[in-house]
Amino acid sequence: MKKIIVIGGSAAGPKTAAKARRLDEHAEIILLQKEKDLSMASCGYPYYVGGVFDNRNELISTPTGVVRDPKFFLNAKGIDARTETEVVSIDRNNHTVTCKHIQTGQIDTLGYDKLVICTGAKPVIPPVPGTDLNGITTLQSLKDADFLRKIRDEKKVKKAVVVGGGLIGIETCEALQLAGIDITIVELAPQLLTFLDSDMAKLVENHVRSKGANVLTSNGLSAFLGEDGQLTGVKLANGTELECELAVVSIGVRPNVDLAKEAGLEIGQTGGIVVDKHMQTSDPDIYAAGDCVESFNLITEQKVHAPMGDLANLQGRVAGENVIAGNVVTFDGVYQTGICKVFDFSAGSTGLSETVAKTLGYDTYETVINASPDKPGFMGANLLISKMLADKKTGRVLGLQCIGPGDVSKQIATAAMALKGKFTVEDLINLDMPYAPPFSLAIDHFIATGHLMQNKLKERLVGISPEKLYKKLSDNEKPFILDVRGPDEFEEMRLGIGETLIPLGVLRQRLDELPEDKNAEIICFCKISLRGYEASLILKAYGWTNVKVMEGGVVSWPYPRER
Amino acid sequence: MKKIIVIGGSAAGPKTAAKARRLDEHAEIILLQKEKDLSMASCGYPYYVGGVFDNRNELISTPTGVVRDPKFFLNAKGIDARTETEVVSIDRNNHTVTCKHIQTGQIDTLGYDKLVICTGAKPVIPPVPGTDLNGITTLQSLKDADFLRKIRDEKKVKKAVVVGGGLIGIETCEALQLAGIDITIVELAPQLLTFLDSDMAKLVENHVRSKGANVLTSNGLSAFLGEDGQLTGVKLANGTELECELAVVSIGVRPNVDLAKEAGLEIGQTGGIVVDKHMQTSDPDIYAAGDCVESFNLITEQKVHAPMGDLANLQGRVAGENVIAGNVVTFDGVYQTGICKVFDFSAGSTGLSETVAKTLGYDTYETVINASPDKPGFMGANLLISKMLADKKTGRVLGLQCIGPGDVSKQIATAAMALKGKFTVEDLINLDMPYAPPFSLAIDHFIATGHLMQNKLKERLVGISPEKLYKKLSDNEKPFILDVRGPDEFEEMRLGIGETLIPLGVLRQRLDELPEDKNAEIICFCKISLRGYEASLILKAYGWTNVKVMEGGVVSWPYPRER
Repeated sequence: MKKIIVIGGSAAGPKTAAKARRLDEHAEIILLQKEKDLSMASCGYPYYVGGVFDNRNELISTPTGVVRDPKFFLNAKGIDARTETEVVSIDRNNHTVTCKHIQTGQIDTLGYDKLVICTGAKPVIPPVPGTDLNGITTLQSLKDADFLRKIRDEKKVKKAVVVGGGLIGIETCEALQLAGIDITIVELAPQLLTFLDSDMAKLVENHVRSKGANVLTSNGLSAFLGEDGQLTGVKLANGTELECELAVVSIGVRPNVDLAKEAGLEIGQTGGIVVDKHMQTSDPDIYAAGDCVESFNLITEQKVHAPMGDLANLQGRVAGENVIAGNVVTFDGVYQTGICKVFDFSAGSTGLSETVAKTLGYDTYETVINASPDKPGFMGANLLISKMLADKKTGRVLGLQCIGPGDVSKQIATAAMALKGKFTVEDLINLDMPYAPPFSLAIDHFIATGHLMQNKLKERLVGISPEKLYKKLSDNEKPFILDVRGPDEFEEMRLGIGETLIPLGVLRQRLDELPEDKNAEIICFCKISLRGYEASLILKAYGWTNVKVMEGGVVSWPYPRER
Repeated sequence: MKKIIVIGGSAAGPKTAAKARRLDEHAEIILLQKEKDLSMASCGYPYYVGGVFDNRNELISTPTGVVRDPKFFLNAKGIDARTETEVVSIDRNNHTVTCKHIQTGQIDTLGYDKLVICTGAKPVIPPVPGTDLNGITTLQSLKDADFLRKIRDEKKVKKAVVVGGGLIGIETCEALQLAGIDITIVELAPQLLTFLDSDMAKLVENHVRSKGANVLTSNGLSAFLGEDGQLTGVKLANGTELECELAVVSIGVRPNVDLAKEAGLEIGQTGGIVVDKHMQTSDPDIYAAGDCVESFNLITEQKVHAPMGDLANLQGRVAGENVIAGNVVTFDGVYQTGICKVFDFSAGSTGLSETVAKTLGYDTYETVINASPDKPGFMGANLLISKMLADKKTGRVLGLQCIGPGDVSKQIATAAMALKGKFTVEDLINLDMPYAPPFSLAIDHFIATGHLMQNKLKERLVGISPEKLYKKLSDNEKPFILDVRGPDEFEEMRLGIGETLIPLGVLRQRLDELPEDKNAEIICFCKISLRGYEASLILKAYGWTNVKVMEGGVVSWPYPRER
């Protein structure tokens, strides 16, 4: 009878144990969990805090409402799950782990044939004074969620600071803002959600601000301030002090590898446990899965730390099969796909962002921004904004970001499939997608993004991003800026960056209003820059040689407008 | 200067003309449209009829509200669009078309270098008596939509029959039902929505009935009945007479190829114009696109008629480029992806259904049914039911159907990408999809479907569909049927097909209640058959040899239940 020990009872651990059990009814499977609860839906914490649902048990129950406690694991899964049981050491030579029951102090030494480490990640705490004050928390554990939910329900806290504007920071901001708490997000980087490029992140930031939250970027924390052990504010790197009674720290997590390190297992440069495709560590009898391991990015071919609940489950499934059946299945790597609800928006990404591409020294990529609705206007359209990266030489799709009101997950899922299939831009042009007016435009937003990228790669569309145009203007360059929308649209909303209005419908008759110099730089746009693109083609046909389109149009302009 | 003539102004035609213009500012481009309107969003008609929106102009306007009339085409697109202009003949030798203005009767003969035929499809009318009665319509033209919308607004019609339960039939049913009209759908086939397999269609039918619509399948029309020229009812093939004041015929469309046929162009076996990958007909100077052509199914490698608005646009884009630039781009084929809103449900499909696979004589396919939520219960889950087909030998994914409350389009889009990429089931196992609780489960429904298929292909999961179990019981076979849900669940809802309840959590202790004969056929299930699967593994581990899982569980059982 095979003896399997799994350390960690959150996501990867229970999945590993369950998969192992399905493949071997007679193996001895012990799950050791330091915390009180098992199999917590930790990604759901912000929604419990925010009041999307009120029954805390839903976070630790099966879909039919059975709490996933040790009794459930024993009866339904045949798994000996021991909670509040901390593993204190791994003895690789003797194939044992020593664990201690947190309440009783009882020490046990358990033998294993195969060991799986699923110790997760732990939140990074900034190295500043005051971290021991009351009123500072993370949102990492169910205990944290209980603490924040209580604050929401008590309605006493008026001001809070969220330190870190990543996924968890944004989700926490939304949850607390919905509870009527005045929120400031403090982010060290120049932007929120660093998985997005700065232009996309700026649009998200505008939405967060429009919901009443305050956002301070390029600003770190220098101290937590307090009186009588209670948090009263935070001090920022630039000296600003913000009053607050609550601070939620969400500046990231790092792999929890203390046990693995002490046991002498190989740790990678990302700080995660090194595993091969079988989720096997440097010790052939020890596997690891979830937030404690490092993963392989299939686009950049670099090691990365990708602490995501979905990957933890998939990796656990692989580890669970391999500890029973030998190394028969693999987990090949990740595209670092992510998504986040941001009030009425969602924001997602898969594959390479331009920022990462630049950092890694890629120099043959092309980007394009597409703004177009998710469905027809008469069905209640949401305007989505996507940014795609592709390789100029091969045409291979390298990444997609998408933001906008509603649900961008279909766009990101579709792009993730394109990455997995190593699709080129040409592969996207005639996709046969599910079309009906309640679900998409006749040409789906994703296909339209592909069309735009094709037009760029074929050099029919010469684009300039709003960000680059903004920089050009800041550098005192004076391109001729042509808005080709209708007069009504211009009255209602305009950039006010020195643009000239000539509606597309009269452009052919009013070419004499364009610069005489046929080599002058002309930048066309409209609301979403489809008409802007058509205008650029007309101008080129009439001899202007340096005509660009501001990609994404007015709706993708993240800077202040004249109106 | 190149002369391009495009016949047809609905979807493919305007797209062709617009793309041609973008590539050649100086070409002469004439668009000839028989109807009064141009570029109608015809897929939106049912939603206008149903009152999802009230402004009819939204069907013929740009997103910024400009009506796409000849003036718009001329000014914004540089296209000479002539409405109410019917082409009466094509003279291929002289490269001319002769057209007639419907109001004035004026005849013009226009020369072309390249001609593009986008004459669409026309509705099939059943060859029965009474089709000339007032009160019978299709929902094919804007005129039809106006007629039905008026009926909705006037609230005089009490009873209507929808003849044909395909996409348009279901959408029309929903629109009229929402208007308070008592609806009966009459369908000649044994099921609604024939792009779905019968088991999936039956679940959709149950939902349609639950909304109050009456559904008669396996029943054709034998006559329209009337008095004084006015429809009063329909008579069915089985003799039943149904009273009604309105009948909407939606039994399908066939390619409108009269002009092409008269011009001697090759017509395929599907009835559509034969085109190659460049959308070029048998005459190198004539192209065709949209509902009038036949397409190539990339899975079955057979010619099919695929009259869909999205394909019309994509094909038009290809035709538009090729008439200007030579045969530089291709439209390779279709997966016959489709989706349909059905009251609170949606239903979609891509690739092969089991029905089509059987018809074509495929014999190496495997199917699996997956019932699982689209997101966590605490986020307000919708239960999706998918049926996947894969090739047993190669593992290649051949098709996916998905139905359920809410929006199944992400599932279908993801599957369409898998088909396009020629993915095998193994390619689905570790997909890196966008996960966060508002958008999906940690293991997305699509990945879970892949996991189930993998378990079937590896022969860990031996499945039986509800349909096959039902047939088995109808044939008086007596398998041992094991429901492993909890007692509460059993009290609330049960099949009542002779099943024994032994909850999964006590199964290992109650194995003595299973058949003594270790070769007896045992069929396990639960709500969605995840616990049913685990039960089957336990029984097999304890020596039972003939253990199956009823796929999809209680929620996928489309037949009447005991409670």
